[in-house]
Amino acid sequence: MADRAETQEAIKVQGEVVRKLKAEKASKDQIDVEVAKLLELKLRLGGDDVKHQFVLKTPKGTRDYNPKQMAIREKVFNTIVGCFKRHGAETIDTPVFELKETLTGKYGEDSKLIYDLKDQGGELLSLRYDLTVPFARYLAMNKISNIKRYHIAKVYRRDNPAMTRGRYREFYQCDFDIAGHYDPMIPDAECLRIVSEILGELDLGDFHIKVNDRRILDGMFAVCGVPDDKFRTICSTVDKLDKMCWEDVKNEMVKEKGLSEEAADMIGQYVSMQGGMDLAVRLLEDPKMSQSKQACAGLGDMKQLFSYLELFQVTDKVVFDLSLARGLDYYTGVIYEAMLGPAGATTPPPPPPPQAGAPKAEESLSVGSVAGGGRYDGLVGMFDPKGRAVPCVGVSIGVERIFSILEQKAEAEKVRTTEVQVLVASAQKNLLEERLRLVTELWNAGIKAESMFKKNPKLLSQLQHCEESGIPLVAILGEQELKNGMVKLRTVATREEVDVSRADLIEEIRKRTSTV
Amino acid sequence: MADRAETQEAIKVQGEVVRKLKAEKASKDQIDVEVAKLLELKLRLGGDDVKHQFVLKTPKGTRDYNPKQMAIREKVFNTIVGCFKRHGAETIDTPVFELKETLTGKYGEDSKLIYDLKDQGGELLSLRYDLTVPFARYLAMNKISNIKRYHIAKVYRRDNPAMTRGRYREFYQCDFDIAGHYDPMIPDAECLRIVSEILGELDLGDFHIKVNDRRILDGMFAVCGVPDDKFRTICSTVDKLDKMCWEDVKNEMVKEKGLSEEAADMIGQYVSMQGGMDLAVRLLEDPKMSQSKQACAGLGDMKQLFSYLELFQVTDKVVFDLSLARGLDYYTGVIYEAMLGPAGATTPPPPPPPQAGAPKAEESLSVGSVAGGGRYDGLVGMFDPKGRAVPCVGVSIGVERIFSILEQKAEAEKVRTTEVQVLVASAQKNLLEERLRLVTELWNAGIKAESMFKKNPKLLSQLQHCEESGIPLVAILGEQELKNGMVKLRTVATREEVDVSRADLIEEIRKRTSTV
Repeated sequence: MADRAETQEAIKVQGEVVRKLKAEKASKDQIDVEVAKLLELKLRLGGDDVKHQFVLKTPKGTRDYNPKQMAIREKVFNTIVGCFKRHGAETIDTPVFELKETLTGKYGEDSKLIYDLKDQGGELLSLRYDLTVPFARYLAMNKISNIKRYHIAKVYRRDNPAMTRGRYREFYQCDFDIAGHYDPMIPDAECLRIVSEILGELDLGDFHIKVNDRRILDGMFAVCGVPDDKFRTICSTVDKLDKMCWEDVKNEMVKEKGLSEEAADMIGQYVSMQGGMDLAVRLLEDPKMSQSKQACAGLGDMKQLFSYLELFQVTDKVVFDLSLARGLDYYTGVIYEAMLGPAGATTPPPPPPPQAGAPKAEESLSVGSVAGGGRYDGLVGMFDPKGRAVPCVGVSIGVERIFSILEQKAEAEKVRTTEVQVLVASAQKNLLEERLRLVTELWNAGIKAESMFKKNPKLLSQLQHCEESGIPLVAILGEQELKNGMVKLRTVATREEVDVSRADLIEEIRKRTSTV
Repeated sequence: MADRAETQEAIKVQGEVVRKLKAEKASKDQIDVEVAKLLELKLRLGGDDVKHQFVLKTPKGTRDYNPKQMAIREKVFNTIVGCFKRHGAETIDTPVFELKETLTGKYGEDSKLIYDLKDQGGELLSLRYDLTVPFARYLAMNKISNIKRYHIAKVYRRDNPAMTRGRYREFYQCDFDIAGHYDPMIPDAECLRIVSEILGELDLGDFHIKVNDRRILDGMFAVCGVPDDKFRTICSTVDKLDKMCWEDVKNEMVKEKGLSEEAADMIGQYVSMQGGMDLAVRLLEDPKMSQSKQACAGLGDMKQLFSYLELFQVTDKVVFDLSLARGLDYYTGVIYEAMLGPAGATTPPPPPPPQAGAPKAEESLSVGSVAGGGRYDGLVGMFDPKGRAVPCVGVSIGVERIFSILEQKAEAEKVRTTEVQVLVASAQKNLLEERLRLVTELWNAGIKAESMFKKNPKLLSQLQHCEESGIPLVAILGEQELKNGMVKLRTVATREEVDVSRADLIEEIRKRTSTV
């Protein structure tokens, strides 16, 4: 540890750094970092004067969940897990961090958003960016060639947070994936059915799911004259259509990425198309698209997909949309994304705009993506020592946005955050021991019960506690009751009180709380 | 990005580094780090030849949970959460990382085990080391002065892993804490009751809970002649009595920490004492101990604690043990730790050993700590801008060790990892559409059902799938059944088959699976 005088000198220097940054109106982040360093130095000196200068916050882009938010979260997870289990999924878990190299080369341009751990000796580690890459690593490592699994856990992205809209740096993903060699489009269709079931059950209002296929996108790029080596980068520009208008997207393609204006305009025509099975049929006959083998393979599968979606009764929720790109590198086939809000003009598809503009861009701004996924047949092979492929398709439910919506809805409501059935209370002083004896009896019987931690709480404050936390029953002890072997059982909502013999109490509480 | 030739040169150099380390028989950790760097360089070159050279593993000290392990984990969590809820707890969640300064100065000598994140611009962050410090930060930040909450989440320690014994670098903690100004020892006693309920319900065999008090330890150090400024460091040496024998502990005190041999021997006498309320009474009359105000306060509370434990019916599980120290800096009062195995000679306390030796040391080696906790009245005040204190007491269940035990027990058993009630199967070819139609009907009715993802699976392989994953029922479709509006419902266990009309199928499945 540094010597005291040295630390004091360092504090002086660091104080100057902070003052200078503030004077220069540097970014808050930059100032925060330097202030943190300053506080750490001060802490080394110890003493009470510095102890209270902590910055009292959670890290940028993260939040705590309070008990009310947790109650909502538990309900949402129960719905989602219920659906995953209804579809026969098992569950696994993986560590929050992976070897850095496990994540390297999987996320394309998004890789810069990965959180790395400090090199403290030992392996180089990064926080997981999604649950898909760890899943693929798990399959390869354990030589698993087929599984239907779900995984609910937090993932980490050093992105620009927008917390009011449910965009965090630490956020939950709820993933369902099907791995294995199967006949085309059957598992893919089940994933879409699952998204539809979950969003329906969560009662979030109208929603729709856009689908597309990486092969259709690649075929489209090919027939529009995009050079092979620009497919991925142009694809990630198309992906921005949900945040940017067509003009800006086109600009990026032409000016930043060097695409010809003609190719960009041709892309613009295609990405404005939306429909269902009919659109797949139409594009299979499109003079340009039909030139691409890849596009035809994708379009054929899209037709098949819609026929299964029909059987799964979800075609009213699904739109084939050529502007859907999804940023992640690992997708190889079908991709999809679910949005809240009406499906827009799904059938018939909207007339192509007079110019190559995509009017959907603005619409998408107002509705949020709440689920997404697709097929990634190559990812497991990247991990397998012999390159063996395990085809996979999956979906990720973006629950943070769903939490935000439900939290806003519940703002005015009273949500119970405990499940206590009965409070053991006393009407007089000096009954602590009797209360503890009774509450123990109730716990022994598996009843959810509590008693206040004061020796002599006032009856009124005990009753108020029940009102506040929604406890339905109070078992009240008094000298008289104890003498007679009775307990006064009070129903909080009605204020009705009955005398119950100690021997019948448990039975009586069970009877009353099974209907409360 | 570096240019190709440059990268190739770097790979050559790095290859040399690795070869040299291997030749020198450097530590595995050191080699791993350099190999990781080498692989990262190779990845920059791209190409299939390097893609498959990934080290296929989870980070050191961590593990994946497979579906069977998850099924066990879910059961354990349900038991624990059930108990926490029975005692009226709410739940919260906090981010996996905190500002580094939030953790600084809370863990004493253990601070070196904290995982830091890399400085990628922005705040300096660390992974949480426990759930207690984030809880205190949460209370201060939200100005909460009383709450009973549980929190189940993973924490991170760069410790030496011993994975077969359930010691990981990433591991779950299940914490229950009571914050608030209450009458002494009532919440403390409830925490011990909770540990006892949980360990009993998990059916892990015999267990016992050691209790002590930081004030008793400090008083003991004072009367034994330990200088004030050595209390904490001597305390953390005493804490090693569960891993080291008394002679080694004494050696560390005297030779490393400069304590007088006389003081060490006196400590040795005390730390060999075990008992119940009787021991507290005896020590209150001890000529030396009674000289310390602190010790007397602790011993008085210990007496009180045992009187509440009597009412909570758990005295048979709790031992007052003066050797229990617990390493963490933030404890201020009662501390406790639960171990599997019999309570040993609890009452009467063992006769003091002829020499100041602690025979318990070896015994402790064979049993594992599965829960621990204590009172920390000063921690919230360290975060509060005005230093307001919120007294807290809590317990943390160390579930990883419990998982290991239950996983070993379940090794030979078949554990179901899905909840599917019925498989929709077909007896002939070309019935995929009919199967999908029927499985959709079942999902619509909330029944857990699946159908195989092949167009024409063999009946035998469909039945085998049921046997393997424990699915109790099969709904078999055939041309004949479809014509007659019937389904053949087969009970997998008995191989009995009945024809059920399509209209009655759902009712019939519900009836049969409610008892299966």
